[in-house]
Amino acid sequence: MSFYYGVDIGGTTVKLGRFREDGTLLEKWELPTRLGENGKYILDDIAASILSKTVEAGGSPSQIQGVGMGIPGPILPDGCMEVGVNVGMRHAYPARELSERLGLPLVRCENDANVAALGEAWKGGGAGFSSIFLFTLGTGVGGGAVRDGRILSGSHGIAGEIGHTTVNLTETEACNCGNRGCLEQYASATGLVRVAQRALAASQAPSLLRDIKNLTAKDVMDAAKEGDSLAGEAAAVMGRYLAWAMSWVSHILDPEAFVIGGGVSAAGEFLLGLMREEYEKRTPMLSRKAELRLATLGNEAGIYGAVRLVLEP
Amino acid sequence: MSFYYGVDIGGTTVKLGRFREDGTLLEKWELPTRLGENGKYILDDIAASILSKTVEAGGSPSQIQGVGMGIPGPILPDGCMEVGVNVGMRHAYPARELSERLGLPLVRCENDANVAALGEAWKGGGAGFSSIFLFTLGTGVGGGAVRDGRILSGSHGIAGEIGHTTVNLTETEACNCGNRGCLEQYASATGLVRVAQRALAASQAPSLLRDIKNLTAKDVMDAAKEGDSLAGEAAAVMGRYLAWAMSWVSHILDPEAFVIGGGVSAAGEFLLGLMREEYEKRTPMLSRKAELRLATLGNEAGIYGAVRLVLEP
Repeated sequence: MSFYYGVDIGGTTVKLGRFREDGTLLEKWELPTRLGENGKYILDDIAASILSKTVEAGGSPSQIQGVGMGIPGPILPDGCMEVGVNVGMRHAYPARELSERLGLPLVRCENDANVAALGEAWKGGGAGFSSIFLFTLGTGVGGGAVRDGRILSGSHGIAGEIGHTTVNLTETEACNCGNRGCLEQYASATGLVRVAQRALAASQAPSLLRDIKNLTAKDVMDAAKEGDSLAGEAAAVMGRYLAWAMSWVSHILDPEAFVIGGGVSAAGEFLLGLMREEYEKRTPMLSRKAELRLATLGNEAGIYGAVRLVLEP
Repeated sequence: MSFYYGVDIGGTTVKLGRFREDGTLLEKWELPTRLGENGKYILDDIAASILSKTVEAGGSPSQIQGVGMGIPGPILPDGCMEVGVNVGMRHAYPARELSERLGLPLVRCENDANVAALGEAWKGGGAGFSSIFLFTLGTGVGGGAVRDGRILSGSHGIAGEIGHTTVNLTETEACNCGNRGCLEQYASATGLVRVAQRALAASQAPSLLRDIKNLTAKDVMDAAKEGDSLAGEAAAVMGRYLAWAMSWVSHILDPEAFVIGGGVSAAGEFLLGLMREEYEKRTPMLSRKAELRLATLGNEAGIYGAVRLVLEP
């Protein structure tokens, strides 16, 4: 019996999955993310949990064949995480450190957005395409590129970090990254709400959104679908900037398909519809356009992609 | 004795080089580009020229080991050039067609800008870096990405076509591609002249450029270096848009270095200086920035990159 694990480390929980060699998910569970000591507790907890799950399932530690991890933040080509703000790591080597705890040579680690892209490319909305670019529209905007089953990772660990490309040189509010006008300020869940709130404040136009306290991205998308014009304009801004970013990715990487995931992608075909026309307009050189698909793995994309790191041929 | 050839097909001339297996350029020459018959004459001329050069050099056709070609236009992954405007090809398979003429299995063909990037990555300004992105600033703006010695070619043949990314949503003049606000409209030789001429027409400010007939990009760059403020502003516009495009490439591909080539790159360090600050500002997530280098192979980049296609390990 062989044991393979995929691990998706987040700022509040660690998601884990046990897989068969053929990529079948056998069980999944979560741990709380214990911060502190430069990530020591996170890796201790993951190692202990993997060992105990292996034994519970009737195996022994020597039957663990590989563990893949996704982790939020840039990972350098040598495996170093210089700064992982959400997981409290600095100059850490998470793959090497977990490998030592498990006495296991095959531990691999990549940026979480890239790992999610690998998961979607393998088993999700990107399955069947030779190359994809995933946009993850959540609290922030993440991205990752996969070609021929492999993550396109960068020289400095920021390949796919599309959320912090500048799309608006005239923005006055600052992004979390310190810059102004990042894609994330318009196309994330928080960005969509921000744009809608600004529009609400700037006009007296009637809107379904005026009665909602604690406005969410879903509220904006739902109202837009119902024909609310203020919500529709906020959604259109999101769609236009996303489409523009897609056109850059096409001109630089030229993937076969785009896959759209993250919480905001629950808006489904309506969201894709907001992007399609502008994307086509911005890619006149592209006689055959990239396909546009929704992600299908939800928050399992990370564990699928992570285990794929150690199941690659 | 083994014969390797690199061929760089342009709209007016075809550049050819004969190489040793170790990549040493032994001789180079040019042919006029004979248009017509869907590229038939071009490939006839190349085949005849390669055969005669081989015999002249004391070899026989059976000693030709490989021919690589760069060709202007998108090449699909199956080798099809759907439309190559400058070389008059439509639904052509240039590599296969040259292979048939020469009775040689190893003929490869890629887009010319990607091939130039491969040349610079191998023997030029990008040598020593594991991944580069080349900007070619000539009549248009070309681009190409190389990682671990291989071209990153796209699914629809437009990877690296950075010249037709939109950088200005408010541009009123049209680009050759039909869109408005493409990078090429600001950062090519013709784009730089266009921006300077618009500035000259829009103001009465004194400028060295006012006395020059048939203004060239070199005139604008030279005047900018001498402190001419109108020329300096045109050059700054070019630098800012290029830097912005570099920041997209960093967030999407994250190359180790950028290499700047093409006629406008003769402006040297002055040009790089126009780009550096804006690039750093637009990449706050990038703790270590990509290096910025000038191309060194001039118009031999194409033949070097082309032969590299058939010398790859």
